[in-house]
Amino acid sequence: MAQNSTLDMVTTNPGAANPVAVEVTRGSIVESKHRGSVAIVDVAGTVQGQWGDIKQPVYPRSAIKGLQAIAAVETGAVDAIEMTQSELALLCSSHGGEVRHTETVAGILDRIDCSESDLECGVHWPSHDDSAYALAAQGEAPSQLHNNCSGKHAGMLALAKQIGAPTKGYTKVTHPVQQRILGILEAMAGIEMGGLPVSPDGCTVPTWAIPLENLAFAFAQFGAGESMPPGRREACDRIMNAVFSDPFMVAGTDRYCTEMMNFLGKRVFLKTGAEGVFCATVPSMGVGIALKCDDGASRGAEMLLTAVLDKIGVFEDGEADTVATFLNRPILNRNFLHVGDIRPAKNCLSF
Amino acid sequence: MAQNSTLDMVTTNPGAANPVAVEVTRGSIVESKHRGSVAIVDVAGTVQGQWGDIKQPVYPRSAIKGLQAIAAVETGAVDAIEMTQSELALLCSSHGGEVRHTETVAGILDRIDCSESDLECGVHWPSHDDSAYALAAQGEAPSQLHNNCSGKHAGMLALAKQIGAPTKGYTKVTHPVQQRILGILEAMAGIEMGGLPVSPDGCTVPTWAIPLENLAFAFAQFGAGESMPPGRREACDRIMNAVFSDPFMVAGTDRYCTEMMNFLGKRVFLKTGAEGVFCATVPSMGVGIALKCDDGASRGAEMLLTAVLDKIGVFEDGEADTVATFLNRPILNRNFLHVGDIRPAKNCLSF
Repeated sequence: MAQNSTLDMVTTNPGAANPVAVEVTRGSIVESKHRGSVAIVDVAGTVQGQWGDIKQPVYPRSAIKGLQAIAAVETGAVDAIEMTQSELALLCSSHGGEVRHTETVAGILDRIDCSESDLECGVHWPSHDDSAYALAAQGEAPSQLHNNCSGKHAGMLALAKQIGAPTKGYTKVTHPVQQRILGILEAMAGIEMGGLPVSPDGCTVPTWAIPLENLAFAFAQFGAGESMPPGRREACDRIMNAVFSDPFMVAGTDRYCTEMMNFLGKRVFLKTGAEGVFCATVPSMGVGIALKCDDGASRGAEMLLTAVLDKIGVFEDGEADTVATFLNRPILNRNFLHVGDIRPAKNCLSF
Repeated sequence: MAQNSTLDMVTTNPGAANPVAVEVTRGSIVESKHRGSVAIVDVAGTVQGQWGDIKQPVYPRSAIKGLQAIAAVETGAVDAIEMTQSELALLCSSHGGEVRHTETVAGILDRIDCSESDLECGVHWPSHDDSAYALAAQGEAPSQLHNNCSGKHAGMLALAKQIGAPTKGYTKVTHPVQQRILGILEAMAGIEMGGLPVSPDGCTVPTWAIPLENLAFAFAQFGAGESMPPGRREACDRIMNAVFSDPFMVAGTDRYCTEMMNFLGKRVFLKTGAEGVFCATVPSMGVGIALKCDDGASRGAEMLLTAVLDKIGVFEDGEADTVATFLNRPILNRNFLHVGDIRPAKNCLSF
């Protein structure tokens, strides 16, 4: 990709340690720190900003659920059962397993003549703690509906039905569902993915390790690409608007993705992935963002994304007070004493 | 401190990035990595091994609960209520809030005429998930007994009673309990701590940021020091033996501290602390170990400690199979597929 740092980001030496991006303080000192890298790429494939190694292959994990949902929209799987905006948003989610999440997944499954047992994501307790304790208090155990990926999986089952593929085995890399999605990912990221490392994700769906700059390019296209196959611009807009209409669906109570998109309205589509990944697009600027916190920490990735959004000018003048709360996350101890903060490191994204 | 790398550890440039210590793989590549530093110091205060910056001040957090317990032993607080070995072990714990943990804390409190409401550690759900869900299933909410630090706090209340100090406010840095402990920490770590950064810990008890090499020295003394105030050698041995006799008490089901000490018998006393800290002592070698994972990850700190124990020869010839399971922790996804591993980085502790 062309390199053209018009956003004046620091270019560091690939292969060297990525710079310290986020620091976690306690009392008067930095207690822990997170390193990471950031790629900002425009719809022409030009690198508009970089920080750290942006050539490294990164498993996007859940950060590309929005891209994976394109297949369900383009094939008509979404229209076939007249999915609501909230349901479509849920296809892009890593949800907390709250009741509205699980009931909505169940509603999708019901309308495609599937059930919880058709899901192949596995079971875990709701990641939203209060929902987990409430479930236990009812004497219940979690099901695959509570898996944070169950919305994506419901969408993949809908896709299987729509294209006439068997539902069983839809998580296998060789299944038509995953192959259809692979083709879309290749077009979006501008890279042939056959030779890339691939592994089952936490929910068993394949995740390919994509160079960070290509991930950012995929999100530039997702947000603002005009040179895409017929219908894709509409599909991407439809997915983004579904999420913007109900940000609770992509994450949930007290979750960064939900809070930040509730705050930003339609300015930025963003999505977290496991092991410190974040992807985002700012349609009005025509750029995509992909970042990876080296150590896999979500708290690092969230703060680094906030710093990037601040750096490129997503926030507006009257929003300083709220932005300050995003750029400085207080750490409260078990007695609710303010003992430290999570914040961008001093030279984070500096030049 | 004198520097004498008889254990042949790498000496790196303080101030530079600490080296990559642990890698987390997925499929064929490294997905995430953890950097860190390690100090190994003997009872003479000689640095026997170092890796990364060992001058940096580190909040030991819960890793020094064994040292904090010295005050309760030396003042007679432990004998005054005839604490069992398991109870004394619990004073050194970051427990999972399992039933045997909370009932044992309640038993200590009862015998010093205190109750749960005298604790000042705050409330959180048991960190042992199954215990949390079981509690919820009984329609109950957690109390301060479930706080992972409640054993330490019970010991501090016992200390307050023993020295005739008020129990209220025992977590304040100016309280006689914390001052008594501070004096012990200074002697153990060989450093005047008045000028060190201090902050409330997660449970509000003060935690001082101690240079990593001094933390290691404190644990060398704890394990094998002979030039200590009268009675301290016996106090330290008594604490270590209590923990060795019931490693479940210091952590719990499926926890590293418990598993590793169950495996090692009396060879190594070790204790985790929040934000990626680990301290340990190998009495037979006369050394203490202190390490910090830069990003605060427990998975990184645990693997780095395992690598250190391997490096200095703690494991024995017939133990290779079990050691291999500690040095390579498989990552299973939600369908129990083996998708990656946590392991020491290629050059971890190499020279």
